Amino acid sequence: MEGVHFRRADGPLEDVGHKALAVNLSDLAAMGARPAWFVCALAAPALRLRDVRALARGMAALARRSGIALVGGNVSRARELSLTLTAAGPPAGPRPLLRSGGRAGDWLYVSGTLGAARLGLLSLRGRTPHRARAERRQRRPEPRVALGLLAARYASAAIDVSDGFVQDLGHLLAASRVGAVVQAAALPVDPDVRASTGGPRRALALALRGGEDYELLLAVPRRRAAAFERACARAAEVVSHVGMLVPGRGVSLVDGRGRRTRLQVPGFDHFAGRRA
Amino acid sequence: MEGVHFRRADGPLEDVGHKALAVNLSDLAAMGARPAWFVCALAAPALRLRDVRALARGMAALARRSGIALVGGNVSRARELSLTLTAAGPPAGPRPLLRSGGRAGDWLYVSGTLGAARLGLLSLRGRTPHRARAERRQRRPEPRVALGLLAARYASAAIDVSDGFVQDLGHLLAASRVGAVVQAAALPVDPDVRASTGGPRRALALALRGGEDYELLLAVPRRRAAAFERACARAAEVVSHVGMLVPGRGVSLVDGRGRRTRLQVPGFDHFAGRRA
Repeated sequence: MEGVHFRRADGPLEDVGHKALAVNLSDLAAMGARPAWFVCALAAPALRLRDVRALARGMAALARRSGIALVGGNVSRARELSLTLTAAGPPAGPRPLLRSGGRAGDWLYVSGTLGAARLGLLSLRGRTPHRARAERRQRRPEPRVALGLLAARYASAAIDVSDGFVQDLGHLLAASRVGAVVQAAALPVDPDVRASTGGPRRALALALRGGEDYELLLAVPRRRAAAFERACARAAEVVSHVGMLVPGRGVSLVDGRGRRTRLQVPGFDHFAGRRA
Repeated sequence: MEGVHFRRADGPLEDVGHKALAVNLSDLAAMGARPAWFVCALAAPALRLRDVRALARGMAALARRSGIALVGGNVSRARELSLTLTAAGPPAGPRPLLRSGGRAGDWLYVSGTLGAARLGLLSLRGRTPHRARAERRQRRPEPRVALGLLAARYASAAIDVSDGFVQDLGHLLAASRVGAVVQAAALPVDPDVRASTGGPRRALALALRGGEDYELLLAVPRRRAAAFERACARAAEVVSHVGMLVPGRGVSLVDGRGRRTRLQVPGFDHFAGRRA
């Protein structure tokens, strides 16, 4: 949705097409689903053919790479430009990965790095020194499709990091009726975020609450954790073991000295308009 | 999309929820598909809970009747209220009904009556004397789900009448690479449309080009036509035999004296904003 999820001034419409599909592929990945088909509803004011082509190019390139086919859609006039996608595919494992499958004792993993997408948004808004790589993470997220297919064989529960690590972890915990302990030192804070101005506290805050990383957060039963890590290494998928699920509720963060802090787990207010 | 497909001033939001699902069920019906699941993306400015409940009530009542389940969706802030749905279900027959299956010689049927939805829109806009029943056809179309399931066993091709009889027939003909001959006297012009001011020419124009009737247009091979008509009668589904598919292209309308007129088959310009 223009003005909420993107601004045209931020860059080419190719990126908007890419991201619209990427965030949907990320949801499929978090369910251990093999991308199969999607439909796209395009709503726009009078749109130049050039713009439609740019949107389509970004979407098509990612679709081809991901093995997903556009099978239909809709076009409507509207005051704002928006793309609404529905994507689907069959589970790669014996059943879909859900948020609700986590059990106390499961190990908690997160893929890639955290915080760069939010740093990229701050950079686009001129609220932090320019960071080209982080802006790219914000505008062209890479959904973890291959990791999702792999994780379908090992994980008990999964979710993708769209609203932010703490918030999405909160969704997984609520659905699984457990709590979590997270080691701050184990969090894969993005190198650009570590290097950004504001010091380690701000870097940690960006990693914990930044959002739009589109990494996968995975709960893996302890007995399968070693095999899962070996499989990730063979497939060159980067995952970090960041904590574990525990009985109870909420998220505790453990610092380098072993001190525990209870984290505030927010809901996302879709009408507050925090993102664009 | 508010301002394109509906205006809030026209009536309760229940009707908007109903219609958003109805037009999707109509597409399923036209493919001979059994409604199974749908997802709904809601975009809106700050929305009162009362309004969301009204939308949901209208949608839920029709969903229950149609045996379709809401299985997911999305919520986003936006300047305009919009509902974007994706609905799916398995084919009821051996394969889905397509637009492309028609053959020269097939008989052409249309369900229900034509023109009332457009008359209802004119009535809502004050451009014709008030017609309560027609306004209801415009705001609460009844998708022909049961007829679609029945037709899956007989028809060679189908489409629903959303843009208008001639235009949607044009889509079917183009996909099937045939033409059609339509008997004007056989067209089921809605009684309210016949009774409306403007005379028989205007009534015929509303029936041919009005749009949003959400009736089914069906091509049935001649050898199955009698069985199809008997099955419709048993199921209390009203269909009219309005013409046949012929070699060639385009639509010819035959009047009461046997005179043929070639009809202009338009495309729909989604950016011209003809509807709301």
